Amino acid sequence: MTALAKELDNYLKGIHDLDQETMTAAQSRLDNLCKPPGSLGKLEEIAAQIAGVSGNIYNELTKRCVIIMSSDNGVVEEGVAAAPQSVTYFQTLNFTRGVTGVTVIADVAKSDIMVVDVGINGDISHPQIIDRKIRKGTSNLAKGPAMTREEAEKAILIGIEMVKRASDEGYKIIGAGEMGIGNTTTASSVLCSLADVAVDAAVGKGAGLNETAFNHKKEIITKAVDSISDTDDTIDILSKVGGFDIAAMAGVYIGAAYYRLPVVIDGFISAVAALAAYKLSPLAKEFMIPSHISYEPGYTHVMREMELEPSLLLDMRLGEGSGCPLMFMIADAACAIIKNMATFDEAAIDEDYLNNIQEGDCFTVV
Amino acid sequence: MTALAKELDNYLKGIHDLDQETMTAAQSRLDNLCKPPGSLGKLEEIAAQIAGVSGNIYNELTKRCVIIMSSDNGVVEEGVAAAPQSVTYFQTLNFTRGVTGVTVIADVAKSDIMVVDVGINGDISHPQIIDRKIRKGTSNLAKGPAMTREEAEKAILIGIEMVKRASDEGYKIIGAGEMGIGNTTTASSVLCSLADVAVDAAVGKGAGLNETAFNHKKEIITKAVDSISDTDDTIDILSKVGGFDIAAMAGVYIGAAYYRLPVVIDGFISAVAALAAYKLSPLAKEFMIPSHISYEPGYTHVMREMELEPSLLLDMRLGEGSGCPLMFMIADAACAIIKNMATFDEAAIDEDYLNNIQEGDCFTVV
Repeated sequence: MTALAKELDNYLKGIHDLDQETMTAAQSRLDNLCKPPGSLGKLEEIAAQIAGVSGNIYNELTKRCVIIMSSDNGVVEEGVAAAPQSVTYFQTLNFTRGVTGVTVIADVAKSDIMVVDVGINGDISHPQIIDRKIRKGTSNLAKGPAMTREEAEKAILIGIEMVKRASDEGYKIIGAGEMGIGNTTTASSVLCSLADVAVDAAVGKGAGLNETAFNHKKEIITKAVDSISDTDDTIDILSKVGGFDIAAMAGVYIGAAYYRLPVVIDGFISAVAALAAYKLSPLAKEFMIPSHISYEPGYTHVMREMELEPSLLLDMRLGEGSGCPLMFMIADAACAIIKNMATFDEAAIDEDYLNNIQEGDCFTVV
Repeated sequence: MTALAKELDNYLKGIHDLDQETMTAAQSRLDNLCKPPGSLGKLEEIAAQIAGVSGNIYNELTKRCVIIMSSDNGVVEEGVAAAPQSVTYFQTLNFTRGVTGVTVIADVAKSDIMVVDVGINGDISHPQIIDRKIRKGTSNLAKGPAMTREEAEKAILIGIEMVKRASDEGYKIIGAGEMGIGNTTTASSVLCSLADVAVDAAVGKGAGLNETAFNHKKEIITKAVDSISDTDDTIDILSKVGGFDIAAMAGVYIGAAYYRLPVVIDGFISAVAALAAYKLSPLAKEFMIPSHISYEPGYTHVMREMELEPSLLLDMRLGEGSGCPLMFMIADAACAIIKNMATFDEAAIDEDYLNNIQEGDCFTVV
């Protein structure tokens, strides 16, 4: 076992299940709140899950951030992407300007972002972009492995490192986002290699391909999937047909489980990375919170594979981690109900209450 | 035509379509933002819709409130509800204490609430509860009309009045919630009378009924629906098989369209009231924003009838308006993207930008 493999293995072995005792206590309080049992649905489930992650019944998610992995994919030379490769570079810079989809939504949700260059094809030196460039984009997976096994391990370890950093800084919930032109091709290749999903069922037109390019994209993915011999070797799959962004995001999920932070899944690419993390450590799933049902067809296959149910039905397909801050706000509501709703006992109206009604106006500021 | 009917008719005639010119301008900006066209899905649709409602491309929804209509239903004497009738009274008081589902979620979303007594079976005198009691609960619809036609009109006009109040106070988005034990029975009766929906398909167990009570509930609804002769007379339907809460909420939707405020639909009861408003004025639909897919089976039939698609998949079935504040936050994101995302031109990275990169840390506070 190489040093990198050993390091990763230590993290995987250090993942433990949710705190069942705290979850039971949380569930008991949820069941006693002044509402029909279970009537707040997923909000209750998320409240209990986050309690199991943190070990505390009550949680405040005030510090949160979306970790965005940016990198380029050699396979774009096959014409599988509608946008030019340089978009990866420019949009990564734009993240720091607060003008992209994820950053505008993060602002609404009072979320920070953490931008990591894991392999952009260009020189970036920027104080707000963390430089962990493995190399300037992967190799073209249509012509050979996208990266070496060591590079895949390195990318995963970068993801874990970023979660440690977030945890050390006091962040209470994180999300996994990405920027990488061509990454619906890599994500589809990884999905169809990891799970029993047909290429035709998994692959969409990404950010807008014409019919010819779309068919070529499917051919490339089919060949990529055929090149995988051992479908149980997740790291082999990531290295041969994945991308630095997907591997690093898989590391974010593993890191979230290791450092015990709830982690929100964004759209298709983010979900495929989550699936890779789940294959490396099934327990990692317990720390994941899916957000929106991506418009990309492969997304629902990933959810089915992991038996996860997303909460937002917004027909989004932007990526960048843009669904994560929306879900942070839903998670806020989940954590608030368990903490601030009254139990049936606490909600009882007695004479003392009726005799002490205070002045107020008709718009109750709660 | 009675005076009440005439007053209501004036409001219905005063509803005009969304501002198409502003919507076109909004759509044009959305299409030019630095993302694949349409890739923010419903967020883009909601941004354009709100622009059409307000007549402004850019909107800030800082002041928002859930209008909660509380009232009792005579039909509960048939045993159709799992909870005792007094819960309507107690929970309405609890709204002012900030400890119920809707108020806790409203707090997270920085939303106010407005609580209206349109017919609670009990004496309430509370500075934060608006007294518009029509009478102490409707009559038992299993034995005759729930209310008179005039009472139904009065309830609708109360809803409209409350929206005027909200509009005058500067609220920019509202939601329609309710509290009324027994109101899944009235809502199902109204739905199956207004639309071609079978009782078996529409009716759920509400807040938790046993099998015998559930079958009895369905019998009562079937008889109620059979008592309706003119399915085009929405006010007749509301008066015979509805409730004060549902009629008043229908008024909220009509008022929202008249005073041009976007209005969020909560769960099943709220959706049935929206359908009644839509039947009274089809244009009212253009001002509605559905929130979550209620766990109650009738809900999806209402959405199909109005061709609306909700955005949240949370298995909620609490009512109270609890889904509205969650949707206010999603609407915030919709209004933010159109205002704060850069267009492709604005997002261009030039030399000037690259030469002027400022200091910063890796957690970008956007």
